[in-house]
Amino acid sequence: MSIHEECGVFGLFSPRPIDAANTVCYGLHALQHRGQESCGIVCNDDGVFVSHKDLGLVGDVFSAEVLKAFPPCSIAVGHVRYATTGAGNRSNCQPLEVNHQKGSMAIAHNGNLSNADALRDELELSGAIFHTTSDTETIAYLVTRERLSAPSIEEALARTMGSLEGAYSLIVMSAQKLVCARDPRGFHPLCIGQTPDGTCIVASESCALCAVGATFVRDVEPGEIVIFGPNGVKSDRRRCKTKPLTICSFEHIYFARPDSVIDGVSVHSARVESGRILARTHPVEADVVVGVPDSGLDAALGYSEESGIAYRMGLIKNKYVGRTFIAPSQDERLDKVRIKLSAIAETVRGKRIVLVDDSIVRGTTSARIVALLREAGAAEVHLRISAPPFLHACYYGTDVDSEENLVARGRTAEEIAQIIGADSLGYLPIESLDAITGGKGCCRACFDGNYPTPIPANTKKNRFETKLGEKNR
Amino acid sequence: MSIHEECGVFGLFSPRPIDAANTVCYGLHALQHRGQESCGIVCNDDGVFVSHKDLGLVGDVFSAEVLKAFPPCSIAVGHVRYATTGAGNRSNCQPLEVNHQKGSMAIAHNGNLSNADALRDELELSGAIFHTTSDTETIAYLVTRERLSAPSIEEALARTMGSLEGAYSLIVMSAQKLVCARDPRGFHPLCIGQTPDGTCIVASESCALCAVGATFVRDVEPGEIVIFGPNGVKSDRRRCKTKPLTICSFEHIYFARPDSVIDGVSVHSARVESGRILARTHPVEADVVVGVPDSGLDAALGYSEESGIAYRMGLIKNKYVGRTFIAPSQDERLDKVRIKLSAIAETVRGKRIVLVDDSIVRGTTSARIVALLREAGAAEVHLRISAPPFLHACYYGTDVDSEENLVARGRTAEEIAQIIGADSLGYLPIESLDAITGGKGCCRACFDGNYPTPIPANTKKNRFETKLGEKNR
Amino acid sequence: MSIHEECGVFGLFSPRPIDAANTVCYGLHALQHRGQESCGIVCNDDGVFVSHKDLGLVGDVFSAEVLKAFPPCSIAVGHVRYATTGAGNRSNCQPLEVNHQKGSMAIAHNGNLSNADALRDELELSGAIFHTTSDTETIAYLVTRERLSAPSIEEALARTMGSLEGAYSLIVMSAQKLVCARDPRGFHPLCIGQTPDGTCIVASESCALCAVGATFVRDVEPGEIVIFGPNGVKSDRRRCKTKPLTICSFEHIYFARPDSVIDGVSVHSARVESGRILARTHPVEADVVVGVPDSGLDAALGYSEESGIAYRMGLIKNKYVGRTFIAPSQDERLDKVRIKLSAIAETVRGKRIVLVDDSIVRGTTSARIVALLREAGAAEVHLRISAPPFLHACYYGTDVDSEENLVARGRTAEEIAQIIGADSLGYLPIESLDAITGGKGCCRACFDGNYPTPIPANTKKNRFETKLGEKNR
Amino acid sequence: MSIHEECGVFGLFSPRPIDAANTVCYGLHALQHRGQESCGIVCNDDGVFVSHKDLGLVGDVFSAEVLKAFPPCSIAVGHVRYATTGAGNRSNCQPLEVNHQKGSMAIAHNGNLSNADALRDELELSGAIFHTTSDTETIAYLVTRERLSAPSIEEALARTMGSLEGAYSLIVMSAQKLVCARDPRGFHPLCIGQTPDGTCIVASESCALCAVGATFVRDVEPGEIVIFGPNGVKSDRRRCKTKPLTICSFEHIYFARPDSVIDGVSVHSARVESGRILARTHPVEADVVVGVPDSGLDAALGYSEESGIAYRMGLIKNKYVGRTFIAPSQDERLDKVRIKLSAIAETVRGKRIVLVDDSIVRGTTSARIVALLREAGAAEVHLRISAPPFLHACYYGTDVDSEENLVARGRTAEEIAQIIGADSLGYLPIESLDAITGGKGCCRACFDGNYPTPIPANTKKNRFETKLGEKNR
Repeated sequence: MSIHEECGVFGLFSPRPIDAANTVCYGLHALQHRGQESCGIVCNDDGVFVSHKDLGLVGDVFSAEVLKAFPPCSIAVGHVRYATTGAGNRSNCQPLEVNHQKGSMAIAHNGNLSNADALRDELELSGAIFHTTSDTETIAYLVTRERLSAPSIEEALARTMGSLEGAYSLIVMSAQKLVCARDPRGFHPLCIGQTPDGTCIVASESCALCAVGATFVRDVEPGEIVIFGPNGVKSDRRRCKTKPLTICSFEHIYFARPDSVIDGVSVHSARVESGRILARTHPVEADVVVGVPDSGLDAALGYSEESGIAYRMGLIKNKYVGRTFIAPSQDERLDKVRIKLSAIAETVRGKRIVLVDDSIVRGTTSARIVALLREAGAAEVHLRISAPPFLHACYYGTDVDSEENLVARGRTAEEIAQIIGADSLGYLPIESLDAITGGKGCCRACFDGNYPTPIPANTKKNRFETKLGEKNR
Repeated sequence: MSIHEECGVFGLFSPRPIDAANTVCYGLHALQHRGQESCGIVCNDDGVFVSHKDLGLVGDVFSAEVLKAFPPCSIAVGHVRYATTGAGNRSNCQPLEVNHQKGSMAIAHNGNLSNADALRDELELSGAIFHTTSDTETIAYLVTRERLSAPSIEEALARTMGSLEGAYSLIVMSAQKLVCARDPRGFHPLCIGQTPDGTCIVASESCALCAVGATFVRDVEPGEIVIFGPNGVKSDRRRCKTKPLTICSFEHIYFARPDSVIDGVSVHSARVESGRILARTHPVEADVVVGVPDSGLDAALGYSEESGIAYRMGLIKNKYVGRTFIAPSQDERLDKVRIKLSAIAETVRGKRIVLVDDSIVRGTTSARIVALLREAGAAEVHLRISAPPFLHACYYGTDVDSEENLVARGRTAEEIAQIIGADSLGYLPIESLDAITGGKGCCRACFDGNYPTPIPANTKKNRFETKLGEKNR
Repeated sequence: MSIHEECGVFGLFSPRPIDAANTVCYGLHALQHRGQESCGIVCNDDGVFVSHKDLGLVGDVFSAEVLKAFPPCSIAVGHVRYATTGAGNRSNCQPLEVNHQKGSMAIAHNGNLSNADALRDELELSGAIFHTTSDTETIAYLVTRERLSAPSIEEALARTMGSLEGAYSLIVMSAQKLVCARDPRGFHPLCIGQTPDGTCIVASESCALCAVGATFVRDVEPGEIVIFGPNGVKSDRRRCKTKPLTICSFEHIYFARPDSVIDGVSVHSARVESGRILARTHPVEADVVVGVPDSGLDAALGYSEESGIAYRMGLIKNKYVGRTFIAPSQDERLDKVRIKLSAIAETVRGKRIVLVDDSIVRGTTSARIVALLREAGAAEVHLRISAPPFLHACYYGTDVDSEENLVARGRTAEEIAQIIGADSLGYLPIESLDAITGGKGCCRACFDGNYPTPIPANTKKNRFETKLGEKNR
Repeated sequence: MSIHEECGVFGLFSPRPIDAANTVCYGLHALQHRGQESCGIVCNDDGVFVSHKDLGLVGDVFSAEVLKAFPPCSIAVGHVRYATTGAGNRSNCQPLEVNHQKGSMAIAHNGNLSNADALRDELELSGAIFHTTSDTETIAYLVTRERLSAPSIEEALARTMGSLEGAYSLIVMSAQKLVCARDPRGFHPLCIGQTPDGTCIVASESCALCAVGATFVRDVEPGEIVIFGPNGVKSDRRRCKTKPLTICSFEHIYFARPDSVIDGVSVHSARVESGRILARTHPVEADVVVGVPDSGLDAALGYSEESGIAYRMGLIKNKYVGRTFIAPSQDERLDKVRIKLSAIAETVRGKRIVLVDDSIVRGTTSARIVALLREAGAAEVHLRISAPPFLHACYYGTDVDSEENLVARGRTAEEIAQIIGADSLGYLPIESLDAITGGKGCCRACFDGNYPTPIPANTKKNRFETKLGEKNR
C-alpha cells in the first residue's frame, strides 16, 4: 500500500490542424507523476477518432512510430492512469471512447465519484450495459443520455453535473468541441493555457502547459465548464459556488509537481512553507537538514531556512531503478530501499540530522531510511513530516482505500518514532493546512475523517467487480 | 483482397470445475483456420469473469503462463476472429464482456447481421453508447434490454432473435449458464459435443470437438437455442423453421476444415465429390492430377478417382512461411507465391496437368501457380475450380465486401484462362452446390447474387466507422 | 528426443550490388525445415560486414525493417540452425564472423566433425581461445591459421580440409570471395545455381535455388571447393575421391524437402520409391493407404501405386499449431498429437488402413496416431515405415546423440507393433537404401552402426560444455 | 555528442554458494550511471559458467524470471556498458567469456588501452581470430597466451600487464578465482568491500558496495592485482608505482555517483569544493544559486555556502523521461530540454541567478536551460561550470573521441556566454583539479591536451571496424 494519485488529463483545441498527438504526448510526459500504469491519446481527425492506449509509461507506449501514425488534428485528448488491476487488463485505459446517437465522444477523467454505485444501478435498470468498472463509463452514459435531448454536449454535461457527487476533473471531446469541467468542490486541479500560435490547452497541472510551450491562462474554477469550439471559448458557471470548496490538500503536499501552481498557490512554495512551519512547531537542536529525495527536498529547504540549520544532501536517489522489479532474495541485505536510496556518508557521519519527508504510510520505508542514515554514521535522526498524521481512507481519487496498516492509527508520535527508530518525530499541525493550500477551503478527510460528501457504502477500489460477483452468485 | 471466414466460437459447460481455459485453448487451436487476427477466452469463476484477449494467433496469445493464470472453472467461452482493422485495435477482440443490471454476460459471435445498422440506430435513439463497431455489441445490448423484463437469459435471447436478420452463430455465457443459438437460416455451423467426463462442448465446427476429446452429439438446428445450466440441457425451438435454410456453401467449399462434419455432411467428402463432378463436367485428356495445397487436395483426389488420371504431388507448400511478411524487393524474381509454393519437377516435367484449386479471386495467385508449373516443365496446365465463379459480395460473415477486382466478373472461362495462362479452365456448375452441401438449401448469393435477406444499404466492413465520421462532420 | 537436421546454408555472389539480404532471406525461408532455432545473414558491403542473427524463425528474425537496414551488396551468406541450447544463448548463432590478420571472414556450416575434440585441444595448446562451443569456430581457427601462410582463402581452406574428419558443407565469405566446400564423403548436400542476371547461388538444397528464381547448375562434388571471386568461378578438386562416399540416407528419407534434388536424385521420387518397395516387401490386404502428413505422404502414394490399394486422405495436420507450446494439463484428453493431427472419419471408418510414416523414434507419437485412427473407426491399422529400424546415434550433424529410448532397439517388428497398437508393422529393408539414394554409397550408420569414421570418445552434443566443466573443476 | 563514462564492473567471491546473480544485479543497478546500453552477469556454478547479457538497462535485462534461472554460486562477475554501436549488436556485451586450454575465463573491463592496435596486430600475426572489436578481447587473448606457461591466472595477468598501456580496471573470473587489477596510472576507480557474511566484493565505485550491504575495505591500488581464491585473498603489487598516477578528473567532476568515495576522496565533497572554488574565483552579485539537476546540485550547494547567496530549487527534472525517445516534431516549441527540465517560476521570477552545471559540451543544452530560466522571469543568469573548459578528446574510456563541436575550442568565456545567452560565465580553474581530486596526480588531458601516454594513431571509437574495412578493400 502506498499513496498514489490516480490520473492526469490533457486536452488541446487548435484553430488549425497541428501535430496534435505529439503535443499531447509531451503534455502527458509532464503529467506522468500522476499515473504510471497506463496512458492514452485520442485525436480527432475531422470527426474520425484515432486512438492509441496501452499499459505502460508514456515513453514506452508512445514510440516515434506510434506517434507518426497519428494524422494532423486540431482537437485531441490524453490521459495517464494509475490502476491496481492486473497487467493484462487494458479495458480500463483512458480516454474512454464511445459512440452514441449524436456521434462520437472521448472522455478523460481524474477523480472518483462518491455516488457512482447509485448512478450505475439506476442506469442498469434502464438497460445500460457496462464494459468497464470505472466511474468514467458512468459519466459517459449520463452525458450521452442527456445529450439525446440537450442541444449541445456542454449542455448535456451541465445537466449531468447535477447528479454527480465527488471528485471529477473532466475533459470531453466531441466531433467539434473540447469541453472541460471541474467538480464544484474543486477536489483536483485543472487549468487552461495557450500557446503562441493560439492552441488552447487544458491540463491537470500547470507544469504540463510549460512542457508544450504554452502560457498559463487561468485555473478552471470549481464547478465551471469551459467549452472550446468553432465559435470560440465559452464558460458555463451555473454549477460554480453550489458547494463549499474542498481542494485536496495532498495535491500540494505530495501529488503535484513542485513547478505547478494550483489555484494560485505554487506547489514548491507550499512545500517550503510546510518546512518552515515544521521548524517552528517541531524545532530541534541539530547539525544538518536532509530531505528525502525527491518529494521531501522542498520542505527540507524550508526547515533549513527557518531554523538556520544547514541544508545538506545526505541521501541520493538512484535515478535508473524506477519501477523495475527486483527479484526477492533470501538475502536480507538486498533490500529495495537500499537500491533506490543511498546515504552520502560525508554529509551524515557524526551529525545530528533533521530528516524531512512528506508522509508516513506503513512506516517500513521510513524505518529503512533512518537505518540507512545510522549505518552511515548519523549521531541522531529527527524525522519531520510535512503533512499531518495520515489516518483515514480517501474516496476522491487517491489510492488509499483502506485504513489497515496505517502506522499512525492509534499511536502517538513518540510511539511511531520508536517503531521507526527515529530520535524524535514531528508532524505538520493540521491547522496549518489552510496556510499551505491557499485558505480557500481544503479537504482534510484523510487526516481528520471529516468527509465533505456522504461516504459510499462499499468503498473498495474493486467495488464493481465485487458487486458483480455477488450479483452473479 | 482474399476470401476469409471471419470467426470461430467455442464454449463449454461442465458439471464441476475443470481446467477450462486449457480446454477452450485446445478448441480454439482447432478453429484457428476460421480467424487468425485475434482471439480470446473468458472463464467464469463462480460468477467472476476472468478473461484474456489479444491480437495474434492462439499459440502466441495463450502462452503457458497466461493459461496458468486462469482458475479452474465450469463454464467458459472462446473466440477466434479475422479482422481487417489495424494492429493497435484491440477493442473489437471477442468474446465481448458486458455488465448489466442482472449481472455479467460474455458473448462470442460468428456471422454478420444484415440489419445491424437499423438496430443500432434504434438503440442509440434510446441512449445506448457503443464502445466497438461490431454487430456483437448490438446483439449484447438487445439481449440485456430484453433481460430487464425476461425471466431468464435464454428467454431474453429468444425474444431478441425476433429482431435479428442475417447470420449469427452465438455463444452467450451468463453467471450460471452457457446458451448457444444459431440463426433460423443456418448460415454458419454450430454443433454440440460431450466429453467422457460429462462436459458439454459447443463449437463452430466438429473438428474442435475431437481436439478436446469430445464426441459429436448433434448440430445446433437452424433457429434453435440450446441452454446448458445447473438444471441440465434444454432446447428452445420457437425460431426453428421460421425461415428457409440458406446454409453457406463456402463453408463446405473452402472455410471449414476437411475433418469437420457440417449439418450431416462431411467437408472432406463434399470436396472429393466436387472433384468428381468437375471430372464429369470438365473432362480433359491429361497425365496427372495435382491439387493446390492445402485446400485443393481433396477435390484433386476426387477428380483423379472419377477420371482415372493419376493423382500426384506436384506442388508443395512451405509450412513455415505462414503469415510472416517478407519485405518487398525490387527484384521481381523474389515473389511471395514462389516462397510459399514450389513445384516438384519430377512430377510435372513433360506432363499434361489437371490443376485443382478451390477458388479464383483476383486471378493473380492462380497465374503465378500456373507459371510455376510451366517453369518446372509442365506441357499443359488445365485449371479446375471446385466452386462456381465468384461474382458477388457477401454480407453474412465472410470477408469479401467488394466486387471490384473479381476476375470472373464479366469474363468467360476462356477469357479468364487466357489471363491466368492456363490451357483450359472449368468451374463447378452452380447446380451442383446442393449435391455438395447436403440438399437442405444453401446460400449461393456470392455466385448468383440472389441474397436471402434484404441487403444493407452500406455494406462496407467499416460502415460504422464511416457513418460516425459523417455524423461527426 | 526427436530426429532433427541441424543446419542449412545459403550464399550468393553477384557481379554487381543487389538486394542481397532479401535474396538470402528468401533462400533461408526455403531452408527453414533444416533448422528452426536461430538464423542469420551476413552481407559484405565492399569489405565491411553487416550482419543480423537471432533466435527464432526466419520470418520473425528478418522483419521488413531489419531487411531494409542492409545495404545493397554483391556477396552474402546465411544460415538456419537447430540447436538444443537454452533460449538465452545467442552466441552460437551463425554465420560465425571473425576478424583475423588478413581481414574478415564469415563462415556457415552444416554438419559435425568427428575429430573436433582433438582439433580443439591442439588449438588451445597453441593459445587459441574459444567463444562458442560449435565445430564451426574450430574450422574458422584452422582456416585463418593456414591463411597466415597460404596465398588465398581457398588455399587455406584446401589445406585445412586435410585435417578435418566428418561431415561439413561449408560456405566461407571473405572480403572479396565466396568459397564453398563439401566434405570428401559427401555426407550432406550442397549445390550451385544461377539467376538470369548472373548471380551465383550456393545452397544446402536445390529447393532454395527455385525460391530465389535461380536455375540448378550442379551439385558441389564431395571433396570439392568452389570459389566465386572477382576473376570468375574456379574449382579445386584435390580432396575429391580421397574417401569413399557416404551420403546421409536420412536426407532422402526425412530431412530434405521433397522438391529438392540431391546428387541427382529427386527426394520426392526417392520417397515414392521407398513406398513402392514397402508395398512389395510388406504387402497387406487393406482398403486404403493413408500417409502421416507431411513427411509420410510421398511414400504413401508409392505404396498405393505399387499395391493398387486406394490412396486416401485420412489424417490432416493443423497448419497453425507449429512449434507453439501448449500448457500441460492434468486432463489427459488434451494431448499435443490430437491438436496437431486429426483423423477424417469418412475416410477411415470401417476401413483396413495401411498407415505410412517415415520413422519411429520412441514410438509414443506413432501409438497416438494409431489410436486416433481407431477412435475414428478404423477396422485395422497396418503401419509401414519408409526407413529401416532406427538403432544407433548419429555423429555427423543430426540431433540424435543418444540411443536410449529408441523403441526399435532389442525388439522385433512384432513387439514394436504391439507396443504401438498396430495390427502389423513393416520397415524398409536396409538393402533398399542404395536404390533410394542413388547407389553411389550412403551412410547407414544410424541403422546398422557401421560408422564411416572413427567415433568421437565423447559424443554428447554438449561435449564441450561438459569438458569445460571437468577442466574447471 | 555528449560525455559518457563507458563501463562499470562488479564481482564477488563468497566462501559458500549464495544468491550470486541477485547480488551482482543489485551492484549493477548501483553502477547503472556508468553505462546504460548493455549489461551482463556471468556466474560460476562450480566451474560451469552461466551467463545472461543483453542490450538494455539492468532492470529490463534482469527480470525476476531471468534471475531465478541462475543457480546459487560463490563467484560471479557483472558489467554495465555504454556503447555507440547499433541496437542489433549484442556481440560486444560484457563480461566476455572465453574458453582456453586451461579452462574458462570471464572478463569485465572498464577503460581503454592506448596501444590496443599494436597489440592486436601482433596477435593476428600469430594466428589469433577476433569476434569483437573491443579491447577486452585483446586482453583476454594476452592473458590466456601467458596462461599457457604461467602457473596461475594471476601470474598470467601480471605478465600481461607489462604490455598494456592505457586505462583498465579489470575483473577476471576463472573456474576457482576472482582476480581484479587496476592499471598502474589508476585512471579509473576500483575498490574492494566485504559483506557481514564474508563475501568479498569488487566494484568500480564504492556506491555499489553499499547497495549490496557490504562495507568498504579499500581501493585497489593503481597497478595492483588482488586475488580472491580458495586459499584466501592475496595481493600482487609488482606493477604498482611503475608509472606516475593520472587519476581521471572527470570521475570526480561528472561520472561517479556523489555517494562514492574514490581513492580516499568523497565525490560529493569534491563537487561541493568545486562550487566553493567557483564562488571564490568567479564571484557575482546575485540573489539565488540554482543547480542543474542532478549533477550540478552538489557544486551549487558549495557555491551557496562559500558566497552566502541562498541555495534554491529553481529547476526540476522529470524523473520519468529518462532515455525514451520522443518523436521529432516540426513544432519548435516541443523540445527535449523542456520535457526533461522545467523552471520553478516562484524561485526564479525577478531574481539574479547563479546557475551551476558540471560541463558544457556543445553549448546547445546550456543555452536552452538559460532560456528556460529567462522565460520563467529570471532577471540575470550567471553560469558557473564546475570543470575547466573541455577542449580535447579522451582516449582512456570516456566517449568523446572527437574535438569537433566543442564550443569552448577557440573561444573565450565571454564569447561562450554570449552564444549561450548567459550574463556571465565562469569555469573552474584548471589549477584547482588537484585540490578536488585528492592531490595524488590526475589526468587533465581533456582540458590541457597533455596526454599521459602516447596517443593512438587512429583514435576513433570504431577504429577496428574502419581498419577491417581498409584491410578488406
